[in-house]
Amino acid sequence: MKILIKNGMIVSDSETYQADILIEDEKVKWIGTDLPKTDVDTVIDAEGKYVIPGAIDVHTHMDIDVGIARAVDDFYDGTVAAACGGTTSIVDHMGFGPAGVPLHYQFNEYKKLTEGKAVIDYGFHGVAQHVDDDIIAELETMAEDGIPSVKAYLTYGFKLNDAEVLQILKKMKEIGGVTAFHCENHELVEYMRKKLVEEGKTAPIYHAKSRPNLVEAEAVERVLKLARLAGDAPVYIVHLSCKESLEAVREARRNGQKNIFVETCPQYLLLTEECYEREDGLKYIMSPPLRTQADCDALWEGLADGTIQVVATDHCPFNYGIEKQMGKDDFTKCPNGAPGVEERLMLLYSEGVVKNRISFQKLVETLCTNPAKIYGLCPQKGVLQPGADGDLVVIDPKKESVITKSRMHGAADYTGYEGWNINGEIDMVMQRGRVIVKENDFVGEKGAGQFIHRHTLKAEDIN
Amino acid sequence: MKILIKNGMIVSDSETYQADILIEDEKVKWIGTDLPKTDVDTVIDAEGKYVIPGAIDVHTHMDIDVGIARAVDDFYDGTVAAACGGTTSIVDHMGFGPAGVPLHYQFNEYKKLTEGKAVIDYGFHGVAQHVDDDIIAELETMAEDGIPSVKAYLTYGFKLNDAEVLQILKKMKEIGGVTAFHCENHELVEYMRKKLVEEGKTAPIYHAKSRPNLVEAEAVERVLKLARLAGDAPVYIVHLSCKESLEAVREARRNGQKNIFVETCPQYLLLTEECYEREDGLKYIMSPPLRTQADCDALWEGLADGTIQVVATDHCPFNYGIEKQMGKDDFTKCPNGAPGVEERLMLLYSEGVVKNRISFQKLVETLCTNPAKIYGLCPQKGVLQPGADGDLVVIDPKKESVITKSRMHGAADYTGYEGWNINGEIDMVMQRGRVIVKENDFVGEKGAGQFIHRHTLKAEDIN
Amino acid sequence: MKILIKNGMIVSDSETYQADILIEDEKVKWIGTDLPKTDVDTVIDAEGKYVIPGAIDVHTHMDIDVGIARAVDDFYDGTVAAACGGTTSIVDHMGFGPAGVPLHYQFNEYKKLTEGKAVIDYGFHGVAQHVDDDIIAELETMAEDGIPSVKAYLTYGFKLNDAEVLQILKKMKEIGGVTAFHCENHELVEYMRKKLVEEGKTAPIYHAKSRPNLVEAEAVERVLKLARLAGDAPVYIVHLSCKESLEAVREARRNGQKNIFVETCPQYLLLTEECYEREDGLKYIMSPPLRTQADCDALWEGLADGTIQVVATDHCPFNYGIEKQMGKDDFTKCPNGAPGVEERLMLLYSEGVVKNRISFQKLVETLCTNPAKIYGLCPQKGVLQPGADGDLVVIDPKKESVITKSRMHGAADYTGYEGWNINGEIDMVMQRGRVIVKENDFVGEKGAGQFIHRHTLKAEDIN
Amino acid sequence: MKILIKNGMIVSDSETYQADILIEDEKVKWIGTDLPKTDVDTVIDAEGKYVIPGAIDVHTHMDIDVGIARAVDDFYDGTVAAACGGTTSIVDHMGFGPAGVPLHYQFNEYKKLTEGKAVIDYGFHGVAQHVDDDIIAELETMAEDGIPSVKAYLTYGFKLNDAEVLQILKKMKEIGGVTAFHCENHELVEYMRKKLVEEGKTAPIYHAKSRPNLVEAEAVERVLKLARLAGDAPVYIVHLSCKESLEAVREARRNGQKNIFVETCPQYLLLTEECYEREDGLKYIMSPPLRTQADCDALWEGLADGTIQVVATDHCPFNYGIEKQMGKDDFTKCPNGAPGVEERLMLLYSEGVVKNRISFQKLVETLCTNPAKIYGLCPQKGVLQPGADGDLVVIDPKKESVITKSRMHGAADYTGYEGWNINGEIDMVMQRGRVIVKENDFVGEKGAGQFIHRHTLKAEDIN
Repeated sequence: MKILIKNGMIVSDSETYQADILIEDEKVKWIGTDLPKTDVDTVIDAEGKYVIPGAIDVHTHMDIDVGIARAVDDFYDGTVAAACGGTTSIVDHMGFGPAGVPLHYQFNEYKKLTEGKAVIDYGFHGVAQHVDDDIIAELETMAEDGIPSVKAYLTYGFKLNDAEVLQILKKMKEIGGVTAFHCENHELVEYMRKKLVEEGKTAPIYHAKSRPNLVEAEAVERVLKLARLAGDAPVYIVHLSCKESLEAVREARRNGQKNIFVETCPQYLLLTEECYEREDGLKYIMSPPLRTQADCDALWEGLADGTIQVVATDHCPFNYGIEKQMGKDDFTKCPNGAPGVEERLMLLYSEGVVKNRISFQKLVETLCTNPAKIYGLCPQKGVLQPGADGDLVVIDPKKESVITKSRMHGAADYTGYEGWNINGEIDMVMQRGRVIVKENDFVGEKGAGQFIHRHTLKAEDIN
Repeated sequence: MKILIKNGMIVSDSETYQADILIEDEKVKWIGTDLPKTDVDTVIDAEGKYVIPGAIDVHTHMDIDVGIARAVDDFYDGTVAAACGGTTSIVDHMGFGPAGVPLHYQFNEYKKLTEGKAVIDYGFHGVAQHVDDDIIAELETMAEDGIPSVKAYLTYGFKLNDAEVLQILKKMKEIGGVTAFHCENHELVEYMRKKLVEEGKTAPIYHAKSRPNLVEAEAVERVLKLARLAGDAPVYIVHLSCKESLEAVREARRNGQKNIFVETCPQYLLLTEECYEREDGLKYIMSPPLRTQADCDALWEGLADGTIQVVATDHCPFNYGIEKQMGKDDFTKCPNGAPGVEERLMLLYSEGVVKNRISFQKLVETLCTNPAKIYGLCPQKGVLQPGADGDLVVIDPKKESVITKSRMHGAADYTGYEGWNINGEIDMVMQRGRVIVKENDFVGEKGAGQFIHRHTLKAEDIN
Repeated sequence: MKILIKNGMIVSDSETYQADILIEDEKVKWIGTDLPKTDVDTVIDAEGKYVIPGAIDVHTHMDIDVGIARAVDDFYDGTVAAACGGTTSIVDHMGFGPAGVPLHYQFNEYKKLTEGKAVIDYGFHGVAQHVDDDIIAELETMAEDGIPSVKAYLTYGFKLNDAEVLQILKKMKEIGGVTAFHCENHELVEYMRKKLVEEGKTAPIYHAKSRPNLVEAEAVERVLKLARLAGDAPVYIVHLSCKESLEAVREARRNGQKNIFVETCPQYLLLTEECYEREDGLKYIMSPPLRTQADCDALWEGLADGTIQVVATDHCPFNYGIEKQMGKDDFTKCPNGAPGVEERLMLLYSEGVVKNRISFQKLVETLCTNPAKIYGLCPQKGVLQPGADGDLVVIDPKKESVITKSRMHGAADYTGYEGWNINGEIDMVMQRGRVIVKENDFVGEKGAGQFIHRHTLKAEDIN
Repeated sequence: MKILIKNGMIVSDSETYQADILIEDEKVKWIGTDLPKTDVDTVIDAEGKYVIPGAIDVHTHMDIDVGIARAVDDFYDGTVAAACGGTTSIVDHMGFGPAGVPLHYQFNEYKKLTEGKAVIDYGFHGVAQHVDDDIIAELETMAEDGIPSVKAYLTYGFKLNDAEVLQILKKMKEIGGVTAFHCENHELVEYMRKKLVEEGKTAPIYHAKSRPNLVEAEAVERVLKLARLAGDAPVYIVHLSCKESLEAVREARRNGQKNIFVETCPQYLLLTEECYEREDGLKYIMSPPLRTQADCDALWEGLADGTIQVVATDHCPFNYGIEKQMGKDDFTKCPNGAPGVEERLMLLYSEGVVKNRISFQKLVETLCTNPAKIYGLCPQKGVLQPGADGDLVVIDPKKESVITKSRMHGAADYTGYEGWNINGEIDMVMQRGRVIVKENDFVGEKGAGQFIHRHTLKAEDIN
């Protein structure tokens, strides 16, 4: 099976250039000018269009059970939505299992959740619910099994304390793995939530008030200090959302700390806490909460200047009409999370590249190449070069569209960007040489997604 | 009763000038040139000598019960030692009481410990063992009772969590009080101690290894963030010991945070962790531990450039021959603390002023005036001006001495500075117009010390 | 001659306290409570009023010949205005002499200008018009003659180049003197002025446009680097006016550079470039120009946080109706400068202290004590302590007034603050024990001012 | 003409991957796995070897007349040396012409110097000797003629003043060109040189003393401020050599300044001022001078962390036995400059990549891709992608060599790295599909180099 994509403008994290791409046996085989059409099964004309590596979303929560509710996208719905949004790989943050289970317990659970369902390739991040010698040892076997990353929550039910975090960081550094952190100060959040509820302040806006910027920035500073203490262990801050956290990262790097990776999400770049004041404010209940325009501006700046490495989504959808309504009288009862896996790429293209906030190279860097490098998917994923998987997205810059629920593919009953105009449109999405999306229609196959056995950090990828 | 001190060089936090001082009814009455000797009871010739305000030690632990041992200086021994070292006021950090007691419980206990014993004036810092609405309310009544400061420990048995700290900071800001913090990350310290012991690393040097710089700096950063969150609530870092913590303070101020006060102690300026390698290393077991010369240098720099406001002692003496020996096979069994109340002033004078690391004004500022202003003893204490208490020290710069246990006045069986040469010597110490020390002999009266009813922060004192 | 001032609230750079002051033979003799009235010639009741050291203005230009015009205040008018504004000492920046003259040439000229005229005490700053071995040697004899400071201009006709500046800095460091700098980049200013005029942009606002913030900040950075190169030679930035310059100062100190002193003026704290848009915009033509409100805010912050040491005036008055009109068709033809020596103290009190932007101690520090210390007038001037000159100001905080030309005492036909309300009023001004101002009337004596033989820097004054 | 390079490890600024490269008609045509050998003229086996884009040296001075001497490499010798060192393109900094000539004057002169001589492709940087309206206008025609960059010297005979620099920066920003700066403070250097000579301090080490770090850092700060004033005009600092300059760059970026590019050279990374103390110290007379090990360390750090964008050479060779001896009695008489164009790539590989100071990607980024992007050679040069010129270097990592004059190809009689061991060796160098170097022998053709018509800055290249 040979596919030839002709004359597209290939965008990498470094360059933009016109060339043909030949894909054979699921892999990029040749890139060049005037590649011969001989023996080719399919020829796709990409003249006047951009061709980028399939986007990678390293922060999704498909089918996650958050205790009071379950995310409404299972691995079929969610990956169809991802695919239609130009994402060809996800690395899903697995949810918590029963207390005390080993890391592989959830891995096994998630194999069941994904097999036969996922339509794009997928990996998992481990999640540390508790720390003991067994768990520490298991970090290594998880890595051997293709999961060289683990997440630590500093808040929520299975939050880890600082000594537990330190032990994980030391082990992960030893094995070349990355520890991802949800950074919010648990005690402060719990206290503020309780206090607000006692005061009768239960509207959605109080969700934001209960988790102010400094609550996040404190946790970021703490995690960075712990990583420093662990010998500059690789540390990855998920969904960083505010300017104070960015400053903490800059200060640490200024002091010479290495191996710090930062992720933000489109919602923190594009939406503000004013959303909570809207009638449908519950749609935006997520943690960290939406911030102010000043924070959005700082994040765009941080993206452009290299402070931030990755834009992921924290996709965790619930229905506004059902699950989200649990919070209608009390924001603390509302499941945290929102859809976003499908909107990401074109939002970043339209709001970022077209509006000159970032270069197209920077988009590819933060949605494709960096996530692949940091989390060990590269060079299989994240780049368009010979030997890489034939995962790519063709974008037509001359088309326009409007984001609206009826055009979306996930199970949730809303999108947080309803009515937003988008410059440019996805023409086609290919995974391992197969077209899986064509003009906003999913044309792939249920269960065709494969588990990605990820590798540990390579110096060449992050220096 | 009138005493006239003639021709001394008066040193304030701002100036040095020659003048006479007349003290009447315990108070400084007149300062001037050629004050008349008429009607004066005593004339003291201070020609060629310096006269400074009586030093204030806002960090002592007299008679404290630390659970596994009791500090060997009661309020008599300890204040005699203080007096002989030129300190005429202390603000003692009260120890913990039984779990659950109100703040006044310990206040009442300490009244008993001090009455009839203290030979110099004294105040107390409250200590928050737990936080609930009653404790928060009691912060205000404590302030009304003359105790407008409270200490929060981030480690040790009664450590507070971040939400508890936030509540205290908010209340203290409301009433104009100061919250003092022992900054070390509890979970990290506990983990490292346990691990070192398990590995058989129990020599005194491992005390230092169990509490590295970053463990302190993390806690400093966290406390500063909490104070910021509380609206720049007044925050006082006790015994700051390392360069990373200084940097955290500078960064916070650079970001505009107000009301940050920093204390260090002579041991962190002058001694290093090499002391732990000595045969008598147990003498130096204290928390935070002694650091490196680079840290000492940074602290001197921080003192000179105004990053640090106060030099106190954390005086908490145990006998090397008895209590300290509890740690001879395991540093974790050794009571934390060391004597220092007597050595402070002349160490700072000899090592700081004479060696040109700091000006004499800076010494007066950090040992006398700043502690008085920050903790509400000013203008009664900390300055030599009409209306202030007649508390002063006459220093003869032409004399020299050597620190040695036999010349010290505290109950502990050692000084950490045995054999150190001192340029300059205390000639005389006066409290409220009474000479209490003369040529290294205590000549005051047991129980003559009075409780200092301290006031809350005044803007004029700290801006 | 003995004067007793009873019951005033004495404000120093460190404290506020109530006491009596006895002045005898021109000097402060005693400060105390209940000083006896016996033998006293005059008793002044200061109950309910503040008593501060006579303010010092270390940046005036009395009777200066700026080439195209001469400042309208000679040393009589100008010092009467100063006195009425609570300033009892000035250190005047001498103007340029003929090209090539030695430093003493202007000193001799200024002796003639002052003798028999000045009503308050005065000193001079030398001015370096060129640099050669003779000038460098003369820096030392000037210091011996009581002028241990010299000014270097980085713009204007006698601007020095960087090598000349370096030589001065090295010599001044050697002798313990201070080099004052007018920091603006000459080439840039000249270019921008020329260009604006060529474009027909000659209205007053273009004065501001011709000297943007960065033109000043560049020169500040350069001077700081030169001082660093000279071994942290003492460097004093006159009339710093913008936030970028403040940042340059902070960055230098952060890097450990010592002996940096910064001055700003009331006009940069209180007025903005919007003044140039007014019909009488010419009144505000001065260099550096007025900036924006953001700069004013940054300067108040810099004053409060200790970045700025001194508030002086750059008093250099011209008549709006005469000299200033030279610029009515072309801002470059307008003599630079404005009156301000009289307004300073009460503006700072009313706008700074009363509005809680700075403490009263900070006012005394920056208008009295710091200028005295930095420029070698202390302890004769700048402090109220036994042995100091009997220079003081009594302020009645309960009175109010309005600034208006008719109540001013300088020769210029306007004040830049016409109509400003002032909280508090000067009750009385005393120099060397003589009342020279009483309820806004000058009651002193022409020519009573004395030359102040200033000394070089003492470590105790600046550390 | 078709060449196929099989199985090499291709290193880009982002990735390392194994693939074949097909070059046809001077251009990279295909990159892929298992490219067919059919119709191919030459097949080169690169198995086990690295293939990188031909290195670009954007800072050479071939055949330059520096007044007192002429660089000994003309464009033939110099480009042969470059080629043998893996450099396939240079952008030469043209020397000064007669006073007052237009920019094109030197361009025409340099055409003559290069035509028929250069063996690799070449471009030129313009040089601004003076500034007037004609020169400013000519910046645009130079850009149209393929020279969109101009150099301004802040020292030496044709130094520009700050206003002249500002005008250039504004114009270059308008046209999208880059201004390169030699940053040293002219007045300070001149003064220090003169003074040292007067003191008889004429040995090579005094060359370093006459141009201390701060003399460079001041000029860097000034240029950055001027670029800021010009609206963040693109500014390129050539041969940045010390830590203070790096800090100035970091501070400017921290304040949000864009379009700052920084170059250093191997000599500043690898050699220290101790070289001047050697018997042959004259060999190392160049400006800026060699610094200390601390500066070298800071530069490596700056390279790794992205502060520095480019490593060039400032190749400007003189014979030690002849021209350099002019300075044997007086360093100020010695022509400034040293060879380096040939040593660069393998020094960076061996000392940087092999010793893990930088990744191989970083080497490619700073020697190939960044210089191409910043100076408008990309995508023709600096990258290996379809459509790019067939310029490449094959490196064999398993070989070793020793740098020694006899193996070098330039005309100078020495190398500054005599005896240095090099891990890895250049196997082959190709330009536009022709092998020009094979096993350290130049096998290309005299005069085959072509002029590179460079383009102005593209946002996609630098963001």
